[in-house]
Amino acid sequence: MTTATADAGLYGEIQAFYAHHMRLVDDGHVDAWGETFTHDATISNNANPRPAHGRDAIVAVIRRAHAELAARGVQHRHWMGMTTVEPIDEHTVRATSYALLMAVGKDRAPQIDRSTACVDEIVRTEGRWQIRDRRVRHDALPA
Amino acid sequence: MTTATADAGLYGEIQAFYAHHMRLVDDGHVDAWGETFTHDATISNNANPRPAHGRDAIVAVIRRAHAELAARGVQHRHWMGMTTVEPIDEHTVRATSYALLMAVGKDRAPQIDRSTACVDEIVRTEGRWQIRDRRVRHDALPA
Amino acid sequence: MTTATADAGLYGEIQAFYAHHMRLVDDGHVDAWGETFTHDATISNNANPRPAHGRDAIVAVIRRAHAELAARGVQHRHWMGMTTVEPIDEHTVRATSYALLMAVGKDRAPQIDRSTACVDEIVRTEGRWQIRDRRVRHDALPA
Repeated sequence: MTTATADAGLYGEIQAFYAHHMRLVDDGHVDAWGETFTHDATISNNANPRPAHGRDAIVAVIRRAHAELAARGVQHRHWMGMTTVEPIDEHTVRATSYALLMAVGKDRAPQIDRSTACVDEIVRTEGRWQIRDRRVRHDALPA
Repeated sequence: MTTATADAGLYGEIQAFYAHHMRLVDDGHVDAWGETFTHDATISNNANPRPAHGRDAIVAVIRRAHAELAARGVQHRHWMGMTTVEPIDEHTVRATSYALLMAVGKDRAPQIDRSTACVDEIVRTEGRWQIRDRRVRHDALPA
Repeated sequence: MTTATADAGLYGEIQAFYAHHMRLVDDGHVDAWGETFTHDATISNNANPRPAHGRDAIVAVIRRAHAELAARGVQHRHWMGMTTVEPIDEHTVRATSYALLMAVGKDRAPQIDRSTACVDEIVRTEGRWQIRDRRVRHDALPA
């Protein structure tokens, strides 16, 4: 590897951060999930030409999506893995991962809805990690 | 995160514990798998109103399940991930994870049989980890 | 566990190595992926009676496979997980993992093509890890 890599402490911290971050959204704790982003966070992906700017916009999109899932009785489980972590500066890392979105309906086998690759810039402020920039590539769509 | 979180050493230890624990059961080493539970361990889930109490009862259930799988030529692979680890005291942690059960038949594509969320209380005795209490929530069943 | 286990630093290093290693091949960087094997590396599996010997042979096989995938518009994502790491000597570890091969076509749900168990002998030379021996067991084939 030609880039700097995180030490074990940082690597485990980011893995645990993602577990916490995804559990919040999968369990429908949308406001607490929003707090795992900075106020000025941006999410962009190759499915939508218009990125979401700011925590409020990000949370609003996910609140609607979660209400729609709940109405259909579908449980989402976001799995992130195959993560690498590069320190950018003392308070910032770039984390690159694969992510799967599992959709589980009642009395049905789980479906894999989506496979993506995700690059996050994550900053530590007052001891907690928050995502400042997320770039998602949906594998089923043109790059 | 408002709860205490494990340091990197403990976090990696629990990840490795789960890999070892699940490989034992998937490979059919049911007795060795039983030793990754305390003698008084309890497993409960939302599929069955009656929890299993004690290692002997837990092992007996899994021994029958494994024999049935082997007869059908199906290989199970339990994947745990998205784990968070909270220290409870010096010798005890609470680990919360997602788990997928993959079922692989001969000459067939793997199937995801089950998606669950799992909360374990794990204790360290004489240097080894053992599960004392496991609570499993099957996503496809009513909570 | 009766075998020695890696400390947290080593455990996280191997997890990050696998993420880097698999991303290279999934993204089609076949030559850079080849450099994550030693020159004399061997890959064997239960699907093929003839193991591949040497980095050049390993890379040649994967170069053809990747070209065929690209022609079909299929993105592979290799997920490794459930890893245990045993130090063999100061510069060598044995890592045992589960692996899933996800295949993602355009405008289709991801498919799990393959479930395997993988045992790697990985050596550190001049600060970087390289696989010297890989043994893969395809779960859908006779052992």
